[in-house]
Amino acid sequence: METTRDDNTTENDNIENGHKDGAVAGHEAEEQTLHRRKVKGDSKDHEVEEEVKEVQSIEMIFKDTKVPSWQSQLTVRAFVVSFVLGILFTFIVMKLNLTSGIIPSLNVSAGLLGFFFVKTWTKFLDKSGLLKQPFTRQENTVIQTCVVATSGIAFSGGFGSYLFGMSKVIADQSTTANDSQDIKDPSLSWIIGFLFIVSFLGLFSVLPLRKIMVIDYKLIYPSGTATAHLINSFHTPQGAKLAKKQVKALGKFFSFSFLWGFFQWFFTSGDGCGFASFPTFGLKAYENRFYFDFSATYVGVGMICPYIINISLLVGSILSWGIMWPLIENRKGDWYDKDLSPSSLHGIQGYRVFISISLILGDGIYNFFKVLSKTVVGLTNQLRNKDPNMILPLADKTSAEAKAASFDDQCRTEMFLKDQIPSWLAVSGYVIIAAISTAVLPQIFKQLEWYYVIVIYIFAPALAFCNAYGCGLTDWSLASTYGKLAIFTIGAWAGKDNGGVLAGLAACGVMMNIVATASDLMQDFKTGYMTLASPRSMFVSQIIGTAMGCVISPCVFWLFYKAFDDLGLPGSEYPAPFALVYRNMAILGVEGFSSLPKNCLTLCYVFFAGAIIINMIKDITPNKYAKYIPLPMAMAIPFYLGSYFAIDMCVGSLILFVWEKINKAKADAFGPAVASGLICGDGIWTLPSSILALAGVKPPICMKFLSKSTNNKVDVFLAS
Amino acid sequence: METTRDDNTTENDNIENGHKDGAVAGHEAEEQTLHRRKVKGDSKDHEVEEEVKEVQSIEMIFKDTKVPSWQSQLTVRAFVVSFVLGILFTFIVMKLNLTSGIIPSLNVSAGLLGFFFVKTWTKFLDKSGLLKQPFTRQENTVIQTCVVATSGIAFSGGFGSYLFGMSKVIADQSTTANDSQDIKDPSLSWIIGFLFIVSFLGLFSVLPLRKIMVIDYKLIYPSGTATAHLINSFHTPQGAKLAKKQVKALGKFFSFSFLWGFFQWFFTSGDGCGFASFPTFGLKAYENRFYFDFSATYVGVGMICPYIINISLLVGSILSWGIMWPLIENRKGDWYDKDLSPSSLHGIQGYRVFISISLILGDGIYNFFKVLSKTVVGLTNQLRNKDPNMILPLADKTSAEAKAASFDDQCRTEMFLKDQIPSWLAVSGYVIIAAISTAVLPQIFKQLEWYYVIVIYIFAPALAFCNAYGCGLTDWSLASTYGKLAIFTIGAWAGKDNGGVLAGLAACGVMMNIVATASDLMQDFKTGYMTLASPRSMFVSQIIGTAMGCVISPCVFWLFYKAFDDLGLPGSEYPAPFALVYRNMAILGVEGFSSLPKNCLTLCYVFFAGAIIINMIKDITPNKYAKYIPLPMAMAIPFYLGSYFAIDMCVGSLILFVWEKINKAKADAFGPAVASGLICGDGIWTLPSSILALAGVKPPICMKFLSKSTNNKVDVFLAS
Repeated sequence: METTRDDNTTENDNIENGHKDGAVAGHEAEEQTLHRRKVKGDSKDHEVEEEVKEVQSIEMIFKDTKVPSWQSQLTVRAFVVSFVLGILFTFIVMKLNLTSGIIPSLNVSAGLLGFFFVKTWTKFLDKSGLLKQPFTRQENTVIQTCVVATSGIAFSGGFGSYLFGMSKVIADQSTTANDSQDIKDPSLSWIIGFLFIVSFLGLFSVLPLRKIMVIDYKLIYPSGTATAHLINSFHTPQGAKLAKKQVKALGKFFSFSFLWGFFQWFFTSGDGCGFASFPTFGLKAYENRFYFDFSATYVGVGMICPYIINISLLVGSILSWGIMWPLIENRKGDWYDKDLSPSSLHGIQGYRVFISISLILGDGIYNFFKVLSKTVVGLTNQLRNKDPNMILPLADKTSAEAKAASFDDQCRTEMFLKDQIPSWLAVSGYVIIAAISTAVLPQIFKQLEWYYVIVIYIFAPALAFCNAYGCGLTDWSLASTYGKLAIFTIGAWAGKDNGGVLAGLAACGVMMNIVATASDLMQDFKTGYMTLASPRSMFVSQIIGTAMGCVISPCVFWLFYKAFDDLGLPGSEYPAPFALVYRNMAILGVEGFSSLPKNCLTLCYVFFAGAIIINMIKDITPNKYAKYIPLPMAMAIPFYLGSYFAIDMCVGSLILFVWEKINKAKADAFGPAVASGLICGDGIWTLPSSILALAGVKPPICMKFLSKSTNNKVDVFLAS
Repeated sequence: METTRDDNTTENDNIENGHKDGAVAGHEAEEQTLHRRKVKGDSKDHEVEEEVKEVQSIEMIFKDTKVPSWQSQLTVRAFVVSFVLGILFTFIVMKLNLTSGIIPSLNVSAGLLGFFFVKTWTKFLDKSGLLKQPFTRQENTVIQTCVVATSGIAFSGGFGSYLFGMSKVIADQSTTANDSQDIKDPSLSWIIGFLFIVSFLGLFSVLPLRKIMVIDYKLIYPSGTATAHLINSFHTPQGAKLAKKQVKALGKFFSFSFLWGFFQWFFTSGDGCGFASFPTFGLKAYENRFYFDFSATYVGVGMICPYIINISLLVGSILSWGIMWPLIENRKGDWYDKDLSPSSLHGIQGYRVFISISLILGDGIYNFFKVLSKTVVGLTNQLRNKDPNMILPLADKTSAEAKAASFDDQCRTEMFLKDQIPSWLAVSGYVIIAAISTAVLPQIFKQLEWYYVIVIYIFAPALAFCNAYGCGLTDWSLASTYGKLAIFTIGAWAGKDNGGVLAGLAACGVMMNIVATASDLMQDFKTGYMTLASPRSMFVSQIIGTAMGCVISPCVFWLFYKAFDDLGLPGSEYPAPFALVYRNMAILGVEGFSSLPKNCLTLCYVFFAGAIIINMIKDITPNKYAKYIPLPMAMAIPFYLGSYFAIDMCVGSLILFVWEKINKAKADAFGPAVASGLICGDGIWTLPSSILALAGVKPPICMKFLSKSTNNKVDVFLAS
């Protein structure tokens, strides 16, 4: 039955195979656009579904397996594993945050690794006769949920966007709004405090609605469903076998990627040294940021992202760095002062950042209204007809299938309703936390008045519900769009002279955390529903995971912040692109367009309109052609960053494409595992690498790339 | 029957799967030691042999195929293809000559490519209805023979050894014997003249003995036999199918290797730039020449050479560059003058060169006496018993096998004896060429008196016979050992003051060319015998191939010589290691040991004895353990050069090893094709690369490797 639901949604919404990115990050609509689940990512689920079709009902397979009580689903080992994986994925997400801001779905690797760890452990215990409790799919779901929650904070914490956008490093890249009232440098203590008081509200705000959304409205939550399929499949005998092979592939590429990162490190003793500065297509192309930077992470990300994302990135970078920026740079001295530093926002950098912002905003606003209208239409239909089949027609089902599906539904509904969470807990939880937070937040950000916070908290539950509902329908979490709404409204309200920039950014954080965790929780409830995990254990797991994330994420960020001096600087290893983008949105909201260089505003309007038009064309074109139309959001990222990571990602696409040509079945089964291995290995290498940097250990060699003439000069210099 | 013969020889001689390297180069005992056929190289032949076993007789398969007359075997298309392939392989051999001196057997790729070219051509003609003459295995043998002869000159011409050793570039690296009488710089005219008057003698010297060696003595010539099997297999239906796939694999890796060479080129704008200077294991290791230099050629060579060769190289380089040279360098100022340049033969370089020479001489002399004693024993038995079965017992054959074998033998003998070459032609040919050569050679080298030449020509036929016979038994051509004999005897005879160094080197060339071509020709007769190709067409093909080689090789060398300024200099891209080694052997022969630095002679004695002892131990140990004992000859090469190419070759071994673990059948069938592709692609890239160098086109980028401190200095310098 789930198959039809998925297909149905996909057709309805015309969003190719949307998915939930919750497993790791995707609490942002923007960056999330980039990880709509790619076609082949789904095929594993299709395999699973085929299995399901054979036996007609998933719950039939598990009929003889006892479902443990909700307390026994929450095992110590599950949280130990979650803690370890949480750290791993936090590192990965943090690295991605700070390099390009593109975060792929790591559901598959989280699922695989969680399964692998506990399975190995229980096997070991089983052999030594000490196993008290078998490893169930409910426990697996608990781990999945907890890891998602933990590493999710690395994203919604805004370390690559609003939170880091408050810092002096980012502020100094702009000439306006960089006095002390608009700056708040990161510090471990206030970040942890801030996260603790804002991250739990979202959980409580939608808690009472879980029955309505999951059972009554039968919302799909495609990613939650996919994750549930994955977990269910792991616990069938064939599924476990395949999972074992996938884990092996993941492990192999994990090691390779880790060692490759280690090897690269040796050659990076200075700026512009090492493989990350390899002028693969020549020095001229390198100057315009066209090169392959040998990053295993982004090759892996490219393998997970759909082809259209990677192509969009490439199109965007050719359009910007290949055509527009060189043309604008020819106007140097005319359009902008030629004595400006290349990173000044009044010069060429201004065009890059603001055109990028306008594309992002155009795309974001279009999708906001699209999802909102769908939400309204869906809700209206629900309330008017009370007929879930309007959205999810069962008419085309054979009676056997329908029967199997209804058997599944029956089991699942029964389990889902067995363990209740009282509504008073949700309401009082929300009120208490909101009260604490209203009192404490203005202490942290003196620019954020207490009444701003109250206003946010009044509207938040409604927005959280909207987001959770929209996400259930379309798999899109629009958290970052809601966040931007907060930037502009609260920022404008506070005003330029009262630290509006900082107030806006802080408000963005509060808003984003609420709506992101709300949709996350609902996805997990859906997963739990389909794996017969208790809502209580889901909720507790989410709470524990969030708490872990509130500590782990700031610590990991702190490690990066202390280890790499040039964090957040353009052109450095960790430019944190969205930090500048968010800050400039706040400045734009507070100050208006006065500070933009010549003709920049016109270009911004053009691209803003362009983003909306491209989206409209994409929506009205038949899907056959629409899938070849690039996504404006994806095009925007290289506008600011350059195309090196886009080239990495296209290499990933190419590898997958060739692999699929050679052996489609194998590529489908192992592609995501290989990609996860590449991402995880390189991601975890950042741990030792930042520790080395903290310890002051510098790499011994510089692999430098010099032009012929410079090299001659250097040779003469070195000989003397 | 051939199977047994092969096995038998292998056991008798305790040389693991020896093979003929004639296809391309192996006219040197020394460097040839390095390409004894590796175990897996044979398995294709085993496959073929299995096929043979199934049908019991090869000639049965070809029963209905008409054998063309000897004139029709010599087609124009065959020589066109041979010419093209001759150029290709001359480039490859020349590059190998000038880089490390290690030349693998390229039989397989020559066979494959020859087959591919003509087959494509005939297929094309066949489709257009223009095909007059089908492509036969005899024609294929003609191509093979011709290509072998052509590219063989690139080796026996001594461009990497005696001939280039006469030049000023090499002479200047030594402080003695570098006045004008001991120097003869290369020039296109005299090299071509020299090659023409010395390269044909070998052919005539052993021509009359072909019946005795091939039919009466039934000598094995393992490489000739293997080549014949390959060619026979190509012309059976399954064989052609496999060959097609192999050609495809070869083509793929050819392109990859060519493009990789091209890509690398861009980053080599100065000395010490590019991938060839990549300090893979750190700068300290790089200083001691331990690094992976990304050479596709040597990775391919490593895949073709047996594991023990690559391990020996590695052991040799660890022993020398890892242990001995650093220890000796600590004695700087005590053992040798510390103000000497690092390339002076009175300093550290002297230890490297002379210890290397003593290892080579020790191994060479041991094997010379070993092969000679086998030759004597074999000949004595032959003459006493006239019983070929003493060497090749048929006792263990089933009667069916014996019958099939005797049917093969019958057909082949008949064909072989059909086309006779009169003995007067051979004798008069030898005398005429010898007379011309005696008159002309002293004109080219005024240090080489006419009576030296006459003496060489009196002894040469006997030595040529010895070499051809020994090669037939053991697959070892000892040409370079005979060459060294000439260096020492003629050099000493001429004496120091009469240009003994140059006389010795020239004599070495004369001797090497005779004995090398003699054993080559006999190998080809064996191949011809087994593919029913006429001895006349073999002889004509060899003559034409040699003539082509006498023109192509000097031209290719000239291209290298003009294009690369630092040809022959230590540490450069083309150090031509054996040129210095040969010259120093000549100096040693003329001047004695007086010029060696302190303790060098003692070390030389130790290593000379060591080489002999290791060989003896290898011979008396059971084969099971003997195969793990390194070869002194292989160990000697990195003593002088460093271990970068040894590391490349070990990488090749590793790839093959892993491939065999994963899929042995596939690795066996395609390993040699992949290796050939890697070697050929990189080899042919040297053509455009040298043309670019000649045209003065410099690569645009330098990929430089600097230590941390140097890099800081350079950054400061570049910023100012």
